[in-house]
Amino acid sequence: MVQGTANWNTEQTAEWLQEYVDDWVKFYRKHTNEGNVASYIPLLKEVDPDLLGITIMGRNGMKISSGDIGQQFTLQSISKLLTFIVACMTRGISYVLNRVDVEPTGEAFNSIMHLELNELKKPFNPFVNAGAITVTSMLEGKTSDLKLEPIFELLEKMLGYRPSLNVDVYESERDSSMRNRAIGYYLLEIGFLESDLNITLETYFKQCSIDVTVDDLAKIGVILASDGVDPDTREEIIPRQVARIAKALMLTCGMYDASGKFATYVGVPAKSGVSGGIVAVAPPRVREENLPFLDGCGIGVFGPALDEKGNSIAGIRLLRHIASQWDLSIF
Amino acid sequence: MVQGTANWNTEQTAEWLQEYVDDWVKFYRKHTNEGNVASYIPLLKEVDPDLLGITIMGRNGMKISSGDIGQQFTLQSISKLLTFIVACMTRGISYVLNRVDVEPTGEAFNSIMHLELNELKKPFNPFVNAGAITVTSMLEGKTSDLKLEPIFELLEKMLGYRPSLNVDVYESERDSSMRNRAIGYYLLEIGFLESDLNITLETYFKQCSIDVTVDDLAKIGVILASDGVDPDTREEIIPRQVARIAKALMLTCGMYDASGKFATYVGVPAKSGVSGGIVAVAPPRVREENLPFLDGCGIGVFGPALDEKGNSIAGIRLLRHIASQWDLSIF
Amino acid sequence: MVQGTANWNTEQTAEWLQEYVDDWVKFYRKHTNEGNVASYIPLLKEVDPDLLGITIMGRNGMKISSGDIGQQFTLQSISKLLTFIVACMTRGISYVLNRVDVEPTGEAFNSIMHLELNELKKPFNPFVNAGAITVTSMLEGKTSDLKLEPIFELLEKMLGYRPSLNVDVYESERDSSMRNRAIGYYLLEIGFLESDLNITLETYFKQCSIDVTVDDLAKIGVILASDGVDPDTREEIIPRQVARIAKALMLTCGMYDASGKFATYVGVPAKSGVSGGIVAVAPPRVREENLPFLDGCGIGVFGPALDEKGNSIAGIRLLRHIASQWDLSIF
Amino acid sequence: MVQGTANWNTEQTAEWLQEYVDDWVKFYRKHTNEGNVASYIPLLKEVDPDLLGITIMGRNGMKISSGDIGQQFTLQSISKLLTFIVACMTRGISYVLNRVDVEPTGEAFNSIMHLELNELKKPFNPFVNAGAITVTSMLEGKTSDLKLEPIFELLEKMLGYRPSLNVDVYESERDSSMRNRAIGYYLLEIGFLESDLNITLETYFKQCSIDVTVDDLAKIGVILASDGVDPDTREEIIPRQVARIAKALMLTCGMYDASGKFATYVGVPAKSGVSGGIVAVAPPRVREENLPFLDGCGIGVFGPALDEKGNSIAGIRLLRHIASQWDLSIF
Repeated sequence: MVQGTANWNTEQTAEWLQEYVDDWVKFYRKHTNEGNVASYIPLLKEVDPDLLGITIMGRNGMKISSGDIGQQFTLQSISKLLTFIVACMTRGISYVLNRVDVEPTGEAFNSIMHLELNELKKPFNPFVNAGAITVTSMLEGKTSDLKLEPIFELLEKMLGYRPSLNVDVYESERDSSMRNRAIGYYLLEIGFLESDLNITLETYFKQCSIDVTVDDLAKIGVILASDGVDPDTREEIIPRQVARIAKALMLTCGMYDASGKFATYVGVPAKSGVSGGIVAVAPPRVREENLPFLDGCGIGVFGPALDEKGNSIAGIRLLRHIASQWDLSIF
Repeated sequence: MVQGTANWNTEQTAEWLQEYVDDWVKFYRKHTNEGNVASYIPLLKEVDPDLLGITIMGRNGMKISSGDIGQQFTLQSISKLLTFIVACMTRGISYVLNRVDVEPTGEAFNSIMHLELNELKKPFNPFVNAGAITVTSMLEGKTSDLKLEPIFELLEKMLGYRPSLNVDVYESERDSSMRNRAIGYYLLEIGFLESDLNITLETYFKQCSIDVTVDDLAKIGVILASDGVDPDTREEIIPRQVARIAKALMLTCGMYDASGKFATYVGVPAKSGVSGGIVAVAPPRVREENLPFLDGCGIGVFGPALDEKGNSIAGIRLLRHIASQWDLSIF
Repeated sequence: MVQGTANWNTEQTAEWLQEYVDDWVKFYRKHTNEGNVASYIPLLKEVDPDLLGITIMGRNGMKISSGDIGQQFTLQSISKLLTFIVACMTRGISYVLNRVDVEPTGEAFNSIMHLELNELKKPFNPFVNAGAITVTSMLEGKTSDLKLEPIFELLEKMLGYRPSLNVDVYESERDSSMRNRAIGYYLLEIGFLESDLNITLETYFKQCSIDVTVDDLAKIGVILASDGVDPDTREEIIPRQVARIAKALMLTCGMYDASGKFATYVGVPAKSGVSGGIVAVAPPRVREENLPFLDGCGIGVFGPALDEKGNSIAGIRLLRHIASQWDLSIF
Repeated sequence: MVQGTANWNTEQTAEWLQEYVDDWVKFYRKHTNEGNVASYIPLLKEVDPDLLGITIMGRNGMKISSGDIGQQFTLQSISKLLTFIVACMTRGISYVLNRVDVEPTGEAFNSIMHLELNELKKPFNPFVNAGAITVTSMLEGKTSDLKLEPIFELLEKMLGYRPSLNVDVYESERDSSMRNRAIGYYLLEIGFLESDLNITLETYFKQCSIDVTVDDLAKIGVILASDGVDPDTREEIIPRQVARIAKALMLTCGMYDASGKFATYVGVPAKSGVSGGIVAVAPPRVREENLPFLDGCGIGVFGPALDEKGNSIAGIRLLRHIASQWDLSIF
């Protein structure tokens, strides 16, 4: 299903691309059985592991979708990207970066050890849980709903609709995620939290439980590819500097402790979540002429079977294939 | 103030020992200003740092006390010793030791890191917080008061009176000890806890907040020196095997990450708490004839100014001096 | 001193840029006194800490140089980039990447701990010492000079002359770098080395001791900006895929454990050395029209006063300023 | 084979004890197949894994031996005990303890990590390799043979003969132990070594390669049980204070990272080596009347099949059984 006006090319070429993507989705769907759906949140375990869907949205308006694109799934760690953006927009970039570092850790996303190991002055980065919870604590408002409001407003501006909170996933997560409570109390003790722990965790579990689709992720991606401007309306939704810092973070820390491999083998800023979603950002490219998304695009992928690092196993392979075929790497 | 019948010696010698101990307490009290009272529990900060008191209670009935001996203080980590004993008595030694290891860690008592670092099957030992909370979770009963009951009963049997819970310290500790909550949630997540986390933590904070005196600690010590038998009544209060395992643990892990130095320089099983208390156990000795406590003794010390490891700074020096003068070391 | 034909602009604009850069170098030279020259290699300690020099070389032929540009300095860790490239060219990319990972570590460059901590199957990345020594061991040849030959050949092809080995620095390094010997023996024991340890270390110390200038680094940078092609001769010197992987690695791991901050605040692939050199790569950009190095450039910086992470303190600030003024960031 | 005059008992009882020990050795020999001989030193791999032998030597002169008692084996880590004693005797206790700590680590004996992890001022204890190599560097003399001389002299005094260096094991160890070289260079870099690294390592590998038998270990043990005095000759061979510190160290750190379990379940100071030897020390006991070695004894065990911590698997079980049957525990 190809939509939009492909300025760089004819309708026919778009159809031709669609066929390619359909083939690739079909091929990589077979890889889903090498991974497993997330088990640490009870409700996430119930999803069909064979699902795989993708939407690619060009800055030029071209859109290609393939596979299980109607499926809703929760943001999970992808929400860390949005919270970071909102915190920078509401508290200021320097306020946020004075309280959370931007260094990759080499450790798993839910590590507590690295906090103690290094007697840190601030968490390693906004995409490990310790850093993400710290960023969530910076959101303004006295209740979790007030804190979440600017996140929903940002999503509504970007997507054209207000996504829903998946209450079942939220409650499942709230009641099961003991590691995040452990991290929370640790952060509380060392004085990193900017607001009440319980409200911070409630907000964190809710932000993780917002329902989206691959179309939504692709739209978020294409706005980041445009440095925060919606390519359709030309409206600046995210300040340029925030969008660029977010992309730097995605590249160095976005794919858990496989971020280095993703940067090397795929080469685009991306952020994944344990629900199986990935948002990827391909900025405009200068070099080759004959490429479909030369002008930049956003990509949303969903494939709930995960590899051992917590990334969609088929999703990563599909992205690597597309990035290689269409030369999307920023390097 | 010397009491009891010193079988090995005359009343006069007892008075002569009293003078020595008075001198030593006077001398080591000057060392209190090199330490600091515990700061992490607000109420503990308010105590007078210059306090220093000691009671030595021989298996032969002789008792020497000196310094600030009327002062009450809370058990804090010394309670870990009692909880371990009660858990072994009610659940069985093998039940307990299957769920908590007995290895020194080399890390601080409140470390979370070592849990993650080693992907442990069980916490390192019952005297680091992670192990102690795990042991507390093994106590039977559905409320913290029911869980504590056998600890109070054991104390009543040993001391001849039922000590009180210091409610102010308990509440201060409950409301401030975020690191212990972090450890608790971590233990919950990896499946080490045997009962509800909140009730376990409530029990843990209460056991830490039981008020005692140096006389009480000396009595606990002398019972352990007698392998669990009260030397006055000849009643077995703690099973022999439990008492001996407890002493082994005290020697290898009882003085936080200074346990090795204490074993080397003092050489007796001991357990300290951040309130400034230390209970030490000198078992019967065979060698030299001319020693006051040849037949074994228990020692209670209180000195709230702590060294950097969390042990009473003057208390350790006083114990080292006495152990050296009277050859108390088990080695 | 501006040379070359600035296609995008007139000679006058080039002069105008030169003035800017001269001002910036003058300004940031004052920052050198906030850092310290490397102390762990005796000979490096003798250099003047106030030095600061830069060369910017555009793919369009424009060249701007300012400050202490005649100064020679040794490659140090910048050589890790060259060794990695040569190993990929001679052994194949997959051979190399099967034996060294590409993940940032969060630890200092000379850490041994992270090897033991994670029971690694391979070193974290080619830019920490453990990974770099492993890569050096992959170079072919039975002596250090044979192993180094392809590195010198690559440099000669890129620079138009064969740089010299600084024998004094090499000997100083060989005789003082005990940590690297410790790492080497550790690697030997766990079976990561592909050739004799002593020859590997000799090669490693020699590769670190090759003398270059900021002009040389700028030239290396502009070739990487061109995906391995010399923009002057159009000759492909480094295979395109190798050049792109190298740039991904530079971005995620090139600036020691400040790589994340460099990616966020400067945003270009770069590699630094403790001699105070930095090579940075700004690829072609699509967006704004009015930028001097829109078509991409390489940058060489030299400033031996280092920050606590081991990067040139004034060099990083100068690069950050230029990247911000001319919008060089790849994000 | 029982020798000596069993003061506490008749010859008949001694024969009766011999039968018991023979039975136990027979029984625990079956446990050897649950372990593996050390593999990291090539020559050690060649030994018969089923071997098991023991000698118990009482302060009262009674001696019981059973199993493969003629077998020679190298001291390996047991030499760390002797080097520590010699260093204390020649350099002074405070000199040694100012340069090496006495804390258990919780980590494996060959860990480098714990050095880096804690930015140590001195190695954790004399029985991890880092600490042992540091202690060896304190021995006086400009060659390894000069450094070893006082160790051989001490052994000769204790054993009545001068044991030999096993040159094959020494060379095998020198040529294969890369981890120890890694540790050595690390120690050199952080400034812990008191003499040349190569000579220190040569000395270290030689001290590990001294051949002994279970009789020898039992004799060393019984001298330590007598606080340094040879019970036969009444000569003081090791100063009392050194002997007692050595026993404290054996208890807290002597059995690698199973020292806590050994203290708890066996309860006597002991030191093991990866060749399968263990020397254990049972000091005089006061309590029960009816025990064969009430007056203290030394025990030598040899069983080259090791458990995962590096201790003789059958040896530990045999010791635990004997300690339990004869109540040898110091607790």
